[in-house]
Amino acid sequence: METEQRGRPARVKRLPRAVRERQILDAATAVFSQRGYHAASMDEVAEVAAISKPMVYAYLGSKEELFAACIKREATRLTESVGTVVDPNLAPEEQLWRGVLAFFTFVGEHRDSWNVLHRQVTSEGHPFAQQIAEGRKRVIALIGALLSQAAQAQGMPDYFVPETKPIAAALVGAGESLADWWLDHPDETAKAMALRLMNLVWLGFGTLVQGRTWHPPAGPADATPTPA
Amino acid sequence: METEQRGRPARVKRLPRAVRERQILDAATAVFSQRGYHAASMDEVAEVAAISKPMVYAYLGSKEELFAACIKREATRLTESVGTVVDPNLAPEEQLWRGVLAFFTFVGEHRDSWNVLHRQVTSEGHPFAQQIAEGRKRVIALIGALLSQAAQAQGMPDYFVPETKPIAAALVGAGESLADWWLDHPDETAKAMALRLMNLVWLGFGTLVQGRTWHPPAGPADATPTPA
Repeated sequence: METEQRGRPARVKRLPRAVRERQILDAATAVFSQRGYHAASMDEVAEVAAISKPMVYAYLGSKEELFAACIKREATRLTESVGTVVDPNLAPEEQLWRGVLAFFTFVGEHRDSWNVLHRQVTSEGHPFAQQIAEGRKRVIALIGALLSQAAQAQGMPDYFVPETKPIAAALVGAGESLADWWLDHPDETAKAMALRLMNLVWLGFGTLVQGRTWHPPAGPADATPTPA
Repeated sequence: METEQRGRPARVKRLPRAVRERQILDAATAVFSQRGYHAASMDEVAEVAAISKPMVYAYLGSKEELFAACIKREATRLTESVGTVVDPNLAPEEQLWRGVLAFFTFVGEHRDSWNVLHRQVTSEGHPFAQQIAEGRKRVIALIGALLSQAAQAQGMPDYFVPETKPIAAALVGAGESLADWWLDHPDETAKAMALRLMNLVWLGFGTLVQGRTWHPPAGPADATPTPA
């Protein structure tokens, strides 16, 4: 069990602190996702978490601190979901495919998390816009490094390597926008969404209209053919 | 000259109404872009427009109405910039190239407009989020129609045609994200940015790392080879 943080009493202690915090963060993420940051109330968070409001404050602080804790946890979850499947020993194409599939799987399973991370805090006036923008830049840098490795593995000339950075930015934007599109088409599977992104960014539309489609590299993962 | 709107006096009338309105909208777009919607003040808009505050209210109404008028004007400008260059008699590849180039040219020349349209109002709590989201969906539908036409022109099977809709969503997201990346790399030209997007979405990364690059179709427009 974790040690108590400075000065915050946890009087009713039937559950370990980590469990209580998880309950509160789960409730807060759902409430922030449904209401938006400004309209969300601590009363509703407490109600959804089935914990008294003073306990919510005692464990995770003010609404602003609670929102910061949600963002931190959801961003870490998303990064870990993607990061753990991307094995640097695999071919770049397979790494990208696994990462893209893990991204859509995460969004599909944690729609509230994605909503909070992506929709809630992108506008400039938002208190956490800067934090999210920096996280987004780190993700773009990571993907840029992966693409740069792919380019070098293919013996691409040096002038091409810096090009992988804006390409990574475009890829991230394409993924975000497809995740938004998915909200209006909830019957689609994570795999169909991931195949769409790979088809576009790996093959390109000019190749697709020639009748070619992208398939997951042969390997331990399965290999469903078309994104339809 | 336009007729007066109901009940709004224009006492000092040295300039035509349309000119005054343009001055106010230019100033408001700059102020909203720099301060954000909530922090922007009508005092500053009046100061930047060099028009008295009562005149700003008389011409364009409350801050909310003024913001709505800015969004409407900037969205119309952006759509027209792109729409006028996309000739349906051209090959889809050339239409897409012209549209992409016009988009980046617009963003480069009207950074405040892009900032207001894209950054300011995407978060869910924002009073204009819905309006912008609908405009964005219309753009995706238009691009989807263009891609669908390209697919049909290539004799793609029917099952592929609906795929052009999520592809259009991905393309728009890639363009938005590249425009964001551009803000941190202001020395890049609109043409270099447009070539980056075409290279990724038309050829695809898997094709690019094989050493191929996308070039604008031979035609009346020029044909600079690489995005470097």
